[in-house]
Amino acid sequence: LKGLIIAAGRGVRLKNLTRNKPLLPLLGLSLIERTILTAKQAGIDEFYIVVGYRGEEVKKRLGDGNRYGVKITYIENKEWRRGNGVSVLKAKEWLNENFILLMSDHVFESITLKDLMESKIGEDECVLVVDFVPQEYIDEKEATKVKIENDRIIDVGKKIRNYDGFDCGMFLLSPVFFEALEESIERGDETISGGVKILAEREKMRFLDIGGKPWIDIDTEDSCKKAEKMLLKGLIKPTDGPVSRYLNRRVSTRISKYLVKTNVKPNFISFLSFIVSLMAACFFTMGEYFYVLTAGLLSQFSSTIDGCDGEVARLKFQESSYGAWFDTVLDRYADAAIILGMTYGCWILNRGWETWVVGFMALIGTFMNSYTAVKYDSIFAREKKPRFGRDTRLFLIMLGALLNQIFYTLVTLAVFTNIVSIKRLLVLKETMLNTS
Amino acid sequence: LKGLIIAAGRGVRLKNLTRNKPLLPLLGLSLIERTILTAKQAGIDEFYIVVGYRGEEVKKRLGDGNRYGVKITYIENKEWRRGNGVSVLKAKEWLNENFILLMSDHVFESITLKDLMESKIGEDECVLVVDFVPQEYIDEKEATKVKIENDRIIDVGKKIRNYDGFDCGMFLLSPVFFEALEESIERGDETISGGVKILAEREKMRFLDIGGKPWIDIDTEDSCKKAEKMLLKGLIKPTDGPVSRYLNRRVSTRISKYLVKTNVKPNFISFLSFIVSLMAACFFTMGEYFYVLTAGLLSQFSSTIDGCDGEVARLKFQESSYGAWFDTVLDRYADAAIILGMTYGCWILNRGWETWVVGFMALIGTFMNSYTAVKYDSIFAREKKPRFGRDTRLFLIMLGALLNQIFYTLVTLAVFTNIVSIKRLLVLKETMLNTS
Repeated sequence: LKGLIIAAGRGVRLKNLTRNKPLLPLLGLSLIERTILTAKQAGIDEFYIVVGYRGEEVKKRLGDGNRYGVKITYIENKEWRRGNGVSVLKAKEWLNENFILLMSDHVFESITLKDLMESKIGEDECVLVVDFVPQEYIDEKEATKVKIENDRIIDVGKKIRNYDGFDCGMFLLSPVFFEALEESIERGDETISGGVKILAEREKMRFLDIGGKPWIDIDTEDSCKKAEKMLLKGLIKPTDGPVSRYLNRRVSTRISKYLVKTNVKPNFISFLSFIVSLMAACFFTMGEYFYVLTAGLLSQFSSTIDGCDGEVARLKFQESSYGAWFDTVLDRYADAAIILGMTYGCWILNRGWETWVVGFMALIGTFMNSYTAVKYDSIFAREKKPRFGRDTRLFLIMLGALLNQIFYTLVTLAVFTNIVSIKRLLVLKETMLNTS
Repeated sequence: LKGLIIAAGRGVRLKNLTRNKPLLPLLGLSLIERTILTAKQAGIDEFYIVVGYRGEEVKKRLGDGNRYGVKITYIENKEWRRGNGVSVLKAKEWLNENFILLMSDHVFESITLKDLMESKIGEDECVLVVDFVPQEYIDEKEATKVKIENDRIIDVGKKIRNYDGFDCGMFLLSPVFFEALEESIERGDETISGGVKILAEREKMRFLDIGGKPWIDIDTEDSCKKAEKMLLKGLIKPTDGPVSRYLNRRVSTRISKYLVKTNVKPNFISFLSFIVSLMAACFFTMGEYFYVLTAGLLSQFSSTIDGCDGEVARLKFQESSYGAWFDTVLDRYADAAIILGMTYGCWILNRGWETWVVGFMALIGTFMNSYTAVKYDSIFAREKKPRFGRDTRLFLIMLGALLNQIFYTLVTLAVFTNIVSIKRLLVLKETMLNTS
């Protein structure tokens, strides 16, 4: 499927708008870049973009799309002061097949678009994504509403009564929609909703329930902030452990919010977190409380910024399987360095060989946690349950440092991590033998 | 596809045959069990077995096939003294679709059968697997030969001249083959080859090149031994490192040869290898040369029998993904225990903290080797190149123990394993970023 993106309007409701609305920056990407990259993630790689108001700026920024790995063709709409239906109609001669229609100023998840692209429709039918349980992001007063009967949309508009849901601004359209627009414009309604209304009257307008997944239409200062909040909230993973969820993510997303505005690459952030861990390891070797305390705080800080690499990658669509793997390998070395530092620092105080043995055990268990996690996650990934992981280990280490009890922290780690690993051996035995 | 297995004949050429030939044991399984399980691995789960001579024994052993996870229906052939074509013909009323024909006394690889099952054939066509470059296993004098012209078999028989290849006894047949057999029997030829000859004359007999993959027809004492040798040789993996290939496998396959005759389960062998490693670790802690030497030999022995679990599993079709994973997790704990033992044993002699740090480094590198190997193998699995692994590490440890140089062995491990891991980070970076 090809994508048609409307980026012709002016966005009059954003008061302090110094630049073109589609080029408004949001967490490191302009709105239209985010729309294109989200759609690319869903599988669209050919776009038609209707430009109008300050269209040259949009063209200059996006170019031929090569930079984003997509192909972009521009369609000029000099009548951009008219309704947005006119902008869509300009694409008529370019699209004589089913296509996806998106707004340049809507933020949404690629999974929603994927579902839409996989919708099965009859001939001359169109689909609109509808939100039935809008979240706090949605400005109910300004939003376009829809009325549903059975599996069809029967009415659409900003002011209809007894509505059932909200128009999310994402469409799967067949070329018949252009005719509907022409009819609507003749009637005097130049909006996209006008075209939808015509098809709704003919019972040709289906809908797709967005199912609680986030989206937002950005048309005010306020909605910009809401969109940021929405995207940052989406960075919390269902598998995040409690420490990660309630502590680290709160800090790391705040850091990521600034990092996305720079050119810092996710792999560099992974490396930075690794360096902070090495610093923590060095401080641990010194043994005295002041250094140990510093080391503990650095460990926790390293654990926190360890979340930023993935967050920045996801926010800027820079995710790569190598990046994810590179991060986990560095994490293992970082874990090892911290435990070695703790063990040495503890040993210079008490000089007991037991310290080294306990340190070995803690290292073994920590490694085995990560080693078994690969299989564990591959089996239990669907359950999306939080599991004992690096966030919890480093948090324990920080607590131990605060209390100046490094030896007992090592003992705790040695016991706990090995128990978790052996437990996984048993849990997976049952699961894997039952499913095969 | 359903499978038809011929197990009706007597096997007169096996002199000291005290039991029924299909029930002849070969590395822990009877010939017919191996045929069924190999076919099951290729995807066949419904079998017709033609029994004749001492057929009750076969039925009693195999039952309804439930034990093997397949369905077995028996077809009686009281005329088993006649040619094997008569046995196939008994299945006529059971099979009016394409099916696979196998001999109960042939050993082959499931991958060959899979290729055969995926062969595309026209209506009324049949396929025979043909070996063009027979290995030393094949008794050229006794084998059935085939003559090829273009993509068809044009003649078949034990005594044809200027033949091109050998009949491997594996067929993909359409029901038309039954008619060909009837015609051949009328002509006076009661063998399967007779039917093949009729179809060859009609240009309906295609062939599949076995492509160098091993197979053998067991009909003499000698071929029994050859089959054993062939199966054991097949246990060497293309990814085996040099130590594994040239040393460990030679010993482990000899041990597996005996283990398959017992009821010992692969997971138990993994556990046994683990226990031997723990013993090695204990001996290492004692520090003195006699104990260190013993520990080194035990490490190498553990490494050797660590191959047996997989070998027995493959020979007896008891492979499971849990078993493979269980083995790798125990291996990691075994590695860790041995390095801890070496470090402690070294420390009690020299009392230097450097020993512990070097031990830590060796442990970290060893773990990182295994940790990065998972990704490395998933990317480079196709290349099937041997890689630095556990076999080499434990061999180095044995050498170090022989020379009584545990400290330098730890240093070598610490340096080498970490270099290998970091190298993988770089190699995979290039590969993964280029392919994505």
